[in-house]
Amino acid sequence: MSRCVRQLLLISSSRLEGYEPLEFAANDINALLKKNNVSTLLFIPYALKDHDTYLANTTKIFSKWGYEVVGIHNSRNPIEAVQKAQAIFVGGGNTFRLLKTLYDNQLIDAIQRRVLEEGVPYIGASAGTNVATRSIHTTNDMPIVFPKSFEGLALVPFNINPHYLDADKNSTHKGETREERIIQYLEEAHAGPVLGLREGSWLQVEGCKATLKGLYAARLFVPKKDAKEYESGNDMSFLLDDDWICRCKQ
Amino acid sequence: MSRCVRQLLLISSSRLEGYEPLEFAANDINALLKKNNVSTLLFIPYALKDHDTYLANTTKIFSKWGYEVVGIHNSRNPIEAVQKAQAIFVGGGNTFRLLKTLYDNQLIDAIQRRVLEEGVPYIGASAGTNVATRSIHTTNDMPIVFPKSFEGLALVPFNINPHYLDADKNSTHKGETREERIIQYLEEAHAGPVLGLREGSWLQVEGCKATLKGLYAARLFVPKKDAKEYESGNDMSFLLDDDWICRCKQ
Repeated sequence: MSRCVRQLLLISSSRLEGYEPLEFAANDINALLKKNNVSTLLFIPYALKDHDTYLANTTKIFSKWGYEVVGIHNSRNPIEAVQKAQAIFVGGGNTFRLLKTLYDNQLIDAIQRRVLEEGVPYIGASAGTNVATRSIHTTNDMPIVFPKSFEGLALVPFNINPHYLDADKNSTHKGETREERIIQYLEEAHAGPVLGLREGSWLQVEGCKATLKGLYAARLFVPKKDAKEYESGNDMSFLLDDDWICRCKQ
Repeated sequence: MSRCVRQLLLISSSRLEGYEPLEFAANDINALLKKNNVSTLLFIPYALKDHDTYLANTTKIFSKWGYEVVGIHNSRNPIEAVQKAQAIFVGGGNTFRLLKTLYDNQLIDAIQRRVLEEGVPYIGASAGTNVATRSIHTTNDMPIVFPKSFEGLALVPFNINPHYLDADKNSTHKGETREERIIQYLEEAHAGPVLGLREGSWLQVEGCKATLKGLYAARLFVPKKDAKEYESGNDMSFLLDDDWICRCKQ
């Protein structure tokens, strides 16, 4: 790829205590869409079962800001809908269901081409952020359906853990903490870096530049290294150094 | 299958606040092993990365009760180890890693035959309980590796959610609650009943009889029905009614 034109907002979750959905990220969302003269978003609601209700709820959010929203499920040809999209928003729900439906509808290539080669803005929240990364190996969701692969859209070459949650020191529950689960992933030979994004936080990616945004610090897990905290505003472009997609530094 | 000879203890988790590992279930474990004249257990440690440490820790538990433990990872021929096992214990960790390794080592058929046809006692905890059921669709674990299927050993014809956890009403976290995740599973056409087993609880299965045991009630989720609580001691054999394995009621 000669140019690296991606424009991504990879949001931990649309919901945050004390805010309307996506309200906390409204400035970045609006700036991205205005810069690209977007009037209509293509919404991918596959992570939830009831697409129509999900579309109605999502339309409420974006119409307040002056955008139209069309649901990909209402298109007779989803691939064509992606090819024509001015911007893509992929909402949360169940990551396995979302990824399986993207594969079933043969949308992986189409979205990759639009976002990576043609610079169409991609906004993901929760499951929509998981599928945007290298793989869904670090989703929190239950594997309710079997996708043909865990490989994601690979719009970035690392993993994200959305809804990242610090261990509750008062808990007597013996299930693994989030950190323990991510460390289990890092034990695997195929594992790479995992960015734990707390609710209210997101990663902004513009070409080869990545910036941590939002209300909270993020926790980065790298195989064979100690986990490390990064404050909001931090330049995270180093996560793109070994990017086979954009060849950011080679 | 003409006879239904399975003998299972499907434990929510080996760890429980205030107890040594598996201590809370010691009576049922010992009764099962003694009844079958077991002196040595075959331990399957595949759910954790470090098999030797896991074997050492598990040996500590069972040696107190007078049993020897052999680790399947120390056997040159794991299938043969299963064929010779007096009893099988499958420990917790990551369910995806466990199931993938069972498939990779071609152990699914061997364990099914021993347990379902030859009545070899099977004790599972956490991930070891997940893989014993119809599928791992209701595990809590992170999908750190990609198994060739989510289908489990199907020693019982329904799903279990181990470490079942009630929603924390004081939490401001916006990730799905356990109940919400299970309900997402129930929305899928392939879903069947899911038994939510709280830590400290287990299901005892003897042929076509299933009994809820342990310190806490369990929560049963059935597609298109309200979730329902069942007290410890309750007869759960109705979950085996549509058992294609043992043909318990047909």
